[in-house]
Amino acid sequence: MKQEIQPAKGRLGILLVGLGGAVSSTAVVGTLAVRKGLAKPIGSITQLATIRLGKRNENRFPKIKDVVPLADLNDLVFGGWDIFEDDVYAAAQHAEVLVQKDLDGVKEELQAIKPMKAAFDQNWVKRLHGTHVKQAATRWEMAEQIRQDIRDFKAANNCDRVVVIWAASTEIYIPLCDEHQSLAAFEKAMKENNTEKIAPSMCYAYAAIAEGAPYIMGAPNLCVDMPAMWEFAAQKNVPICGKDFKTGQTMLKTVLAPMLKTRMLGLDGWFSTNILGNRDGEVLDDPDSFKTKEVSKLSVIDTILQPELYPELYGSIYHKVRINYYPPRKDNKEGWDNIDLVGWMGYPMQLKVDFLCRDSILAAPLVLDLVLFADLAQRANMSGIQSWLSFYFKSPMHDFDHIPEHDLFIQYTKLKNTLRKMIGEETIDYLD
Amino acid sequence: MKQEIQPAKGRLGILLVGLGGAVSSTAVVGTLAVRKGLAKPIGSITQLATIRLGKRNENRFPKIKDVVPLADLNDLVFGGWDIFEDDVYAAAQHAEVLVQKDLDGVKEELQAIKPMKAAFDQNWVKRLHGTHVKQAATRWEMAEQIRQDIRDFKAANNCDRVVVIWAASTEIYIPLCDEHQSLAAFEKAMKENNTEKIAPSMCYAYAAIAEGAPYIMGAPNLCVDMPAMWEFAAQKNVPICGKDFKTGQTMLKTVLAPMLKTRMLGLDGWFSTNILGNRDGEVLDDPDSFKTKEVSKLSVIDTILQPELYPELYGSIYHKVRINYYPPRKDNKEGWDNIDLVGWMGYPMQLKVDFLCRDSILAAPLVLDLVLFADLAQRANMSGIQSWLSFYFKSPMHDFDHIPEHDLFIQYTKLKNTLRKMIGEETIDYLD
Amino acid sequence: MKQEIQPAKGRLGILLVGLGGAVSSTAVVGTLAVRKGLAKPIGSITQLATIRLGKRNENRFPKIKDVVPLADLNDLVFGGWDIFEDDVYAAAQHAEVLVQKDLDGVKEELQAIKPMKAAFDQNWVKRLHGTHVKQAATRWEMAEQIRQDIRDFKAANNCDRVVVIWAASTEIYIPLCDEHQSLAAFEKAMKENNTEKIAPSMCYAYAAIAEGAPYIMGAPNLCVDMPAMWEFAAQKNVPICGKDFKTGQTMLKTVLAPMLKTRMLGLDGWFSTNILGNRDGEVLDDPDSFKTKEVSKLSVIDTILQPELYPELYGSIYHKVRINYYPPRKDNKEGWDNIDLVGWMGYPMQLKVDFLCRDSILAAPLVLDLVLFADLAQRANMSGIQSWLSFYFKSPMHDFDHIPEHDLFIQYTKLKNTLRKMIGEETIDYLD
Amino acid sequence: MKQEIQPAKGRLGILLVGLGGAVSSTAVVGTLAVRKGLAKPIGSITQLATIRLGKRNENRFPKIKDVVPLADLNDLVFGGWDIFEDDVYAAAQHAEVLVQKDLDGVKEELQAIKPMKAAFDQNWVKRLHGTHVKQAATRWEMAEQIRQDIRDFKAANNCDRVVVIWAASTEIYIPLCDEHQSLAAFEKAMKENNTEKIAPSMCYAYAAIAEGAPYIMGAPNLCVDMPAMWEFAAQKNVPICGKDFKTGQTMLKTVLAPMLKTRMLGLDGWFSTNILGNRDGEVLDDPDSFKTKEVSKLSVIDTILQPELYPELYGSIYHKVRINYYPPRKDNKEGWDNIDLVGWMGYPMQLKVDFLCRDSILAAPLVLDLVLFADLAQRANMSGIQSWLSFYFKSPMHDFDHIPEHDLFIQYTKLKNTLRKMIGEETIDYLD
Repeated sequence: MKQEIQPAKGRLGILLVGLGGAVSSTAVVGTLAVRKGLAKPIGSITQLATIRLGKRNENRFPKIKDVVPLADLNDLVFGGWDIFEDDVYAAAQHAEVLVQKDLDGVKEELQAIKPMKAAFDQNWVKRLHGTHVKQAATRWEMAEQIRQDIRDFKAANNCDRVVVIWAASTEIYIPLCDEHQSLAAFEKAMKENNTEKIAPSMCYAYAAIAEGAPYIMGAPNLCVDMPAMWEFAAQKNVPICGKDFKTGQTMLKTVLAPMLKTRMLGLDGWFSTNILGNRDGEVLDDPDSFKTKEVSKLSVIDTILQPELYPELYGSIYHKVRINYYPPRKDNKEGWDNIDLVGWMGYPMQLKVDFLCRDSILAAPLVLDLVLFADLAQRANMSGIQSWLSFYFKSPMHDFDHIPEHDLFIQYTKLKNTLRKMIGEETIDYLD
Repeated sequence: MKQEIQPAKGRLGILLVGLGGAVSSTAVVGTLAVRKGLAKPIGSITQLATIRLGKRNENRFPKIKDVVPLADLNDLVFGGWDIFEDDVYAAAQHAEVLVQKDLDGVKEELQAIKPMKAAFDQNWVKRLHGTHVKQAATRWEMAEQIRQDIRDFKAANNCDRVVVIWAASTEIYIPLCDEHQSLAAFEKAMKENNTEKIAPSMCYAYAAIAEGAPYIMGAPNLCVDMPAMWEFAAQKNVPICGKDFKTGQTMLKTVLAPMLKTRMLGLDGWFSTNILGNRDGEVLDDPDSFKTKEVSKLSVIDTILQPELYPELYGSIYHKVRINYYPPRKDNKEGWDNIDLVGWMGYPMQLKVDFLCRDSILAAPLVLDLVLFADLAQRANMSGIQSWLSFYFKSPMHDFDHIPEHDLFIQYTKLKNTLRKMIGEETIDYLD
Repeated sequence: MKQEIQPAKGRLGILLVGLGGAVSSTAVVGTLAVRKGLAKPIGSITQLATIRLGKRNENRFPKIKDVVPLADLNDLVFGGWDIFEDDVYAAAQHAEVLVQKDLDGVKEELQAIKPMKAAFDQNWVKRLHGTHVKQAATRWEMAEQIRQDIRDFKAANNCDRVVVIWAASTEIYIPLCDEHQSLAAFEKAMKENNTEKIAPSMCYAYAAIAEGAPYIMGAPNLCVDMPAMWEFAAQKNVPICGKDFKTGQTMLKTVLAPMLKTRMLGLDGWFSTNILGNRDGEVLDDPDSFKTKEVSKLSVIDTILQPELYPELYGSIYHKVRINYYPPRKDNKEGWDNIDLVGWMGYPMQLKVDFLCRDSILAAPLVLDLVLFADLAQRANMSGIQSWLSFYFKSPMHDFDHIPEHDLFIQYTKLKNTLRKMIGEETIDYLD
Repeated sequence: MKQEIQPAKGRLGILLVGLGGAVSSTAVVGTLAVRKGLAKPIGSITQLATIRLGKRNENRFPKIKDVVPLADLNDLVFGGWDIFEDDVYAAAQHAEVLVQKDLDGVKEELQAIKPMKAAFDQNWVKRLHGTHVKQAATRWEMAEQIRQDIRDFKAANNCDRVVVIWAASTEIYIPLCDEHQSLAAFEKAMKENNTEKIAPSMCYAYAAIAEGAPYIMGAPNLCVDMPAMWEFAAQKNVPICGKDFKTGQTMLKTVLAPMLKTRMLGLDGWFSTNILGNRDGEVLDDPDSFKTKEVSKLSVIDTILQPELYPELYGSIYHKVRINYYPPRKDNKEGWDNIDLVGWMGYPMQLKVDFLCRDSILAAPLVLDLVLFADLAQRANMSGIQSWLSFYFKSPMHDFDHIPEHDLFIQYTKLKNTLRKMIGEETIDYLD
């Protein structure tokens, strides 16, 4: 039952929205350093993970990249858009995520990567003030300009294929509206320049799909998470996935909530607070952007715990998430969780978790993996929502007929069994 | 492919070694309260968990106990051994785990449960001083007395079947010796009264198996974890399982280590400390008993992280576990973990976890589940090591041809897929 | 230089605003239990602390209450106002701070203490909905009714003296206005029923002073912290003090900030978050009430660290305080602090503090101490702001010519040296 | 009453025992960088702190160093002994405390500072293996060699005065013996080469005092804390002080314990654990060295809390201190404290503190301050134990007639009032 997969021939362009941001620049620096042998791609499944094939006693544990036809790091070309015109070297210095020595190893390559002008509308990200932005009369024209950028980049860099990934800031919250329900309605709104319903992020997604490029959504915005885009992706036969990279606190949550549930321990409340001082923290200090993020972060627990099946354990959970802009920390995010759990006969216990993490260090390998897996999916002719990549997202996209899977370990089993199936190997149920 | 399972007819005797200890008494009080409708069996898979059957869209989520033929709580009869002669009501008061109100609901039943004299040897548990103990000239005679106890209990309580479970303190560490390598050598040593190699716990296990009763090992002692017992269990067609209930800190470890590994995050060091003030803490304050526990606790990470496959990520982990007797806390154990992890390009991060748990509250539902599952296994004709119950143990038992599985989520998938297979349902690989 | 102090003859009435709240009821229950010998007044300086007199080698360490003429617990009579009509027994049960056993020891006394109708205006505390409130045409009339209550209580209970203490919820924030600048302006506003500038709490303070009763302000509201009240207190020769009981997180702050400063360690940021689920938490969930509290909590660090003297150490501190209503915790407040400090040559360090405290348990002994000390001050003829009681407050009151002292240890030295001076003993400078 | 103080003329030699260790090298690098204007002496009272003179409203807050005649940083000359022959530049690189950039600013000065051969005996510090050590037939000869080193250093560097400070590892624990009770007994034991009672550290102390150099003891060893040395210091008119620099966890303890006590909050237990990976951690992994440290760390609480005065609050505290060698952390020590406190009516609360500190960063400014203050003391003719410097030590030295003061804030008041008195200013009792 092996799937037909086109080989990964030629160069693969990776276009990052928010090229100069902390996540993008960290991903680019690291990938270039890895391919020069200067750094290790820690955190990357595609580069490091092995996969068990066959029965356990067969002892076959090849690296994923040795049995799955992924694009080679040497074939990657980086580009993208940003609202500031710094090249990636300057941007990475500004981000203060990586130490100077790590930037200097790939300084020239980084300086050569300059952002294209961004599609931007300050009403959608109130705390940012871009200076390197497109002028466009309508959202339709905005998308057209992005499409042209993609074509230009592809030609200039002699790329065989392109993937577009959003690693920029969170836009303000809006609910799903009529304009998002069908491709026709969506295109109409773009042409009518409905700037209240059509976010710049949607123009990137539309342009990518139109150009046949897989689109990955790293922030919690609506963006490709709407029927209009699903329809368009199906029509153009393009993979899409998202949304919101699952990194620090939420990654932990999708590990700890399953622990409670497998052990049938009850939950009274879960309080999560974050402090971070990077651009992302500044954007989320705006209540409208925070709303988008909050919805994404809150959804996680319920789906995992299934209160409808276990009302006595999970029927009345008080779940609160706070994000605090706290400049002394820069990119070093800290997430503090307090979990009020309940055991045998109703006795209360507490679990406190303090995660002194680094936002961009956790997100960077996800960028690399997602780009390579999205490209793989396209070559394997898998279009539309890639639910097997739920592993990487806080709010895994799903259509109205499916429910999302948030449990990190089920997500991982799904990812690996999907790969096994792609290459004609048996899936694993852990019974041997 | 449904398995042939004998129905759960008649009464099931549950014999607890360490009947008056905090874990046993909490388990007994709770089970009696649950069956009277006075408490909820939170933490118990057998009583609360559902199991998905068929494809996800079939929407079949029955409770496990409704589709798997487990013994009914109303058919359980409790008994056991202890080195103090308190009945379970007095013992539970002394343990200070449960509040008075919870004891009073089942006071009479508890007062009726009195321990038989324990097989005890203070050289194996230096900090305890038992007053209600057997006199036996040899270990062989010690086992014979226990066998007689089991037969007597069964007859007196009109039990159809019996399960024996060790929920007593940790004995001192000894390595696997010649005396443990075969049943013949073991029986010889018992008869020669080799008190340095044959622990009291081994006499309980031998007696249980000899009487055809499944034996569950809740502490980290060698006990049934040796070829002699495997041979005996096979010969008598009896299920055995162990060892060391996986509750607070180690449960968390087997959740957090898989998180690191699925995400390919590196690990430099893991420091774990515990403070607890119950009898268990007092016993573990003795370095010899702690050694046994330490070996059990340290093994977990390596097996999960597979340093042999990932030397650059997990090749040099500094892992340290400390247990501190700290009386102010009584049974309210606190486990503090510091984890030094490594991300993209080698950047360090830290994760700190503080678990204010309750030792016996976490262990009690495991006692109930294991007893019911072990009885099920016996009726399903599954003898020897029950590796599908690894989910419940810090050091899952395994013979020399297998490696143990420590990942809590793989263990859980294995447990559920085993149940599915038992009742003739398809196993699940999460690809639908 | 011993001060002339009137003896503590007769009964002392203690009138609590918010009599049924968690803090008041816990204070009342405890004081009654202590005087019956059923509990220990832990946390109370007046009841437990000793005071060194003379040189260290004189070895004189009497209890404060044995050398300072405080009112005896047996002479206290409790009463007060509340917006609900529960007696103190019912109120304490509702508060869920103390266990049943502790209430039952003084049940009858508690049931006999019933609140008078409260002066209340929901515009000032939006989350509360009182049902047991006064009707008053103007603020002036409101105050008159309170004055009558005080006189009635005094007569009915045969009290020699009365102290009034606010232990009720935080009112919304308002700045100091013209109406608060002089007694004349204030009384005019009361008569004109300026409900936007005259809070109910101010009516209590006005009434107390008018009746010659010391007034203690336990919440951060403006209340007595204004020139109008200082003028009135001076005129009536009445002690006043406040404001905002210093209990959990802020108490810690006024200990840790001095540690940094004595050691000349720098500070980059201080992030404080609280979770609590009692009535106080609910009130503070309203942004207007939180504002009042926030101002009180934020002021602390600056005054201690003196950034004007140490700009390189404390010139740009990012200080943020959050309070989160989190019902699972009830009265068990948890405060989590992250402190980013700076050492030798600018190297950063972190200090994290997690305080699992109990709001009312910490505040109750402060109520008792303040009442006794305020009564002492009055008998010692010390009118106006009692800055020697700063020890007990988050925002120690001070007039425009003085700066407040926040350092807990300097406050304590001040308190004790004041007592020493009162009784004619030498003050201590720790040089012997 | 101003004291007669000799002016700080000429050069001041600072001889560090353990010159190449993390603490010494960090102190030297920092001091040199500060005097070149490359770094700030954060954490140093002598360099940064102000002192209030006169009444509060006089508003006089000069820097201490502007009113107290301390030696100028430009007059300091560094030298010392070490068991390895690395110069301070190499040693500092090896210590991994400071980043390369901070070393490079003073590289040449650092390379010029080379250690003299150390007086060493491995029986006293089992985990270290020195290669750059003196050969001496007896302890007396060992001391003679050190005296010669001091004289040579003074001559070679044209020093007017010298101070010797121990910043080396902790020696094993020994109790006070007859050999330490008088100078005569001590010198006899040195001559008889009693290597079991006379530690190398004592030879340094003896030599310093013999040469008229103040001696400061930074580790918890007995060393100068004995009648023999007090006698010798008095005879030679030399200041001595110690012992054990008070930095991370213990500094916090001497702040938090006073908080409990001023508030009359009870204490049930205090559990402290540390993880650190530097040379100090390695040495303390040896139980004998740990014993010395443990005694020093445990003494703190009792003296502050005065259980003899407050048996009901502090009569049965369970206090436990653990130090764990944990290489992943290097010099970045982490101290985790759990405090079980007790409030009103006996209700329990918990306080948890996690201090992610840096051992040498905290200790370095203490080295600088102590050296300057000890030199000041000598010029002010204050010989013997300097109890006004208790502020800096975990175990403040004291003779048999005095009790030590551990409360950080009382220590600080004492230090400042001593300085005020030295310069003829009034002491402060905080009553104005």
